[in-house]
Amino acid sequence: MAKPSIWRIKAQLFVLTKQTYTTRAMAKASITYKDSGVDVHANTRWVSTIEGAMRSTYGPRVFSNRHGGFAGLFRLDYDEQLFRRNYKRPVLVGCTDGVGTKVLIAIEMKKLSTIGIDLVAMNVNDLICCGAEPLFFLDYLAVNKLDPKHLRDVIIGVADGCRQAGCALLGGETAEMPDLYRRGDFDLAGFAVGVVEHNRIIDGSRVASGDVLIGLPSSGVHSNGYSLVRAVVKRRRGQLSRTYDGLGESLGDALLRPTKIYVSAVRAVLQAYRVKRVITAMAHITGGGLKENLARALPSNCDATVLRSSWQPPPVFDWLRQKGVSRAELFKVFNMGVGFVMIVRPRFANGVMRALRRAGEEPFLLGQITRGGGRVRFR
Amino acid sequence: MAKPSIWRIKAQLFVLTKQTYTTRAMAKASITYKDSGVDVHANTRWVSTIEGAMRSTYGPRVFSNRHGGFAGLFRLDYDEQLFRRNYKRPVLVGCTDGVGTKVLIAIEMKKLSTIGIDLVAMNVNDLICCGAEPLFFLDYLAVNKLDPKHLRDVIIGVADGCRQAGCALLGGETAEMPDLYRRGDFDLAGFAVGVVEHNRIIDGSRVASGDVLIGLPSSGVHSNGYSLVRAVVKRRRGQLSRTYDGLGESLGDALLRPTKIYVSAVRAVLQAYRVKRVITAMAHITGGGLKENLARALPSNCDATVLRSSWQPPPVFDWLRQKGVSRAELFKVFNMGVGFVMIVRPRFANGVMRALRRAGEEPFLLGQITRGGGRVRFR
Repeated sequence: MAKPSIWRIKAQLFVLTKQTYTTRAMAKASITYKDSGVDVHANTRWVSTIEGAMRSTYGPRVFSNRHGGFAGLFRLDYDEQLFRRNYKRPVLVGCTDGVGTKVLIAIEMKKLSTIGIDLVAMNVNDLICCGAEPLFFLDYLAVNKLDPKHLRDVIIGVADGCRQAGCALLGGETAEMPDLYRRGDFDLAGFAVGVVEHNRIIDGSRVASGDVLIGLPSSGVHSNGYSLVRAVVKRRRGQLSRTYDGLGESLGDALLRPTKIYVSAVRAVLQAYRVKRVITAMAHITGGGLKENLARALPSNCDATVLRSSWQPPPVFDWLRQKGVSRAELFKVFNMGVGFVMIVRPRFANGVMRALRRAGEEPFLLGQITRGGGRVRFR
Repeated sequence: MAKPSIWRIKAQLFVLTKQTYTTRAMAKASITYKDSGVDVHANTRWVSTIEGAMRSTYGPRVFSNRHGGFAGLFRLDYDEQLFRRNYKRPVLVGCTDGVGTKVLIAIEMKKLSTIGIDLVAMNVNDLICCGAEPLFFLDYLAVNKLDPKHLRDVIIGVADGCRQAGCALLGGETAEMPDLYRRGDFDLAGFAVGVVEHNRIIDGSRVASGDVLIGLPSSGVHSNGYSLVRAVVKRRRGQLSRTYDGLGESLGDALLRPTKIYVSAVRAVLQAYRVKRVITAMAHITGGGLKENLARALPSNCDATVLRSSWQPPPVFDWLRQKGVSRAELFKVFNMGVGFVMIVRPRFANGVMRALRRAGEEPFLLGQITRGGGRVRFR
């Protein structure tokens, strides 16, 4: 007998759908979960989709499923001689995030293949800010109805994101809850675990006057501020299928661009400087924009000055501006084209930029650190 | 300036509620997220609730929040001399689960103080099956509207569960999504991480004929099968406030009983046998009941025989039986009073039972392992 995957499909076993309820309500004396009209083939297809997606992300440290099957197992250290780079004082790093109402745009556009990348990105980009190496990822998918054909792309996207981030998709949960989610709706949450050597933790405490801010371009709106985006689309009667002037693609495509995953670029810099501690802080720019997210990374005796002329926000933000969101508001809510910021020692700035370019990034000098009180200023 | 908690309240920054939309729709030329009428005091109250709850779970291995604040940090090893019991070949264990539609019963009963315990229980009980020590927990709370007074109990319950499980509440995400969740509704997902020494992994591969099944009582329905429970309540017009014959408490209270957390009992046994490997498998009995969950833990050359007379199912299952769910159906969907099963070497069965009793449990001999084909039989 094949062991069930640790990926459990909870609700398929005992959901009584409303439809069943109304058509069969009092006709039968006994109540069984078979009344729910569960599609066994759907379940089988779903499990094989998930298992294929998970396997595509596995590295040598993932344990195979024979181990009981109640949880996913991941070796912290490499046993293989070739890879030996084990941790002396490992500090585990964990974070969780969802993709907010970007799911609703994906559902409306009937394009679910990249929302899983967004989910992984939102988590691993947070994870790497302290210098951590992402290890594994788990996801929680809550749906109105388990429709494997429809939801397949979501999981394939999650696996895609995991491969980009170099982490294993170790497990997940699919919950079918017709009474909580509307027809066609779903929600998606993710969870990432990484590890960092104790004396290599990057926590902003070493940030000093003179340090340089290096910006990494975002791919667009990423996964924050979609309630505002959707309100603008609705109020201004924006059409997702229309290619507005300057956008170069349909509004829907521009809004659905997957969140950039910065793991390989940041890891490349960390690998290039294994002894010198050239990075003093990193910030993933999410809800709250540059101002709030950079402030998280600063010590209380420094300010960060951001040069607005140092980069050009992507056209999707111009569209939002034209539709009535003020420039100040845009900067408060969105990344405005800067998805990730590294704060580095000035004498290493050029070296870090080169390492980032070699990793395929297009970094730019975003600003500088001065003495101050933990604030972020724009100039 | 106080650093923001890693617990981020994403949506409060840029949600435009429907109400705002209809009353202010076209009246203003520019659109800002202040239009959403965000209650800043609610936000502040929420952050302080969360931070208090998190701190109540912290042990010496949790890093304080000064570290950047994009993710939670947790030392794998103890540096403190007193606690030194570090891992030589640590294997990380991760799992995720939700509480299904038990949330809807909690919402209907207006009793949110224990659903967080359920959430932690569903995850950590899975985690410990392979012999792992729970380390930390994160939760994802998705709501229609962030109402701190209303949701406070949920987080306090999560922290309560974490303390029972001896793990730290390392972080979480609160997402306000009025367009995805109905008024008053919310969903809850959790993620747990633990660690186990490589050569102490319990994976069922050593299970052999003659091994003994030890059952640990459940507290009731736990957190599986609630779609069926709710269908029965609805069809048979069950009243949550009524104390039915034999229940000894209201139906609602019986259904909301928090899922039992087996961590301290299982850890006590593992601590009592540090050299001998007396436990060959463990199973958390969730959706699918004893049959399916025990089968997960069995190797393909053994059967498990469960003696139905060895325990008495709690009265809530009698109520479901009386309302029309067949006995066979009940056993397929619910734990029926057995929440956790340990499979142990026969000569250590009495010792393990004693250790469990000392830890406050009421274990019973549930059955035995025979040669077979990976099946679970009832007798």
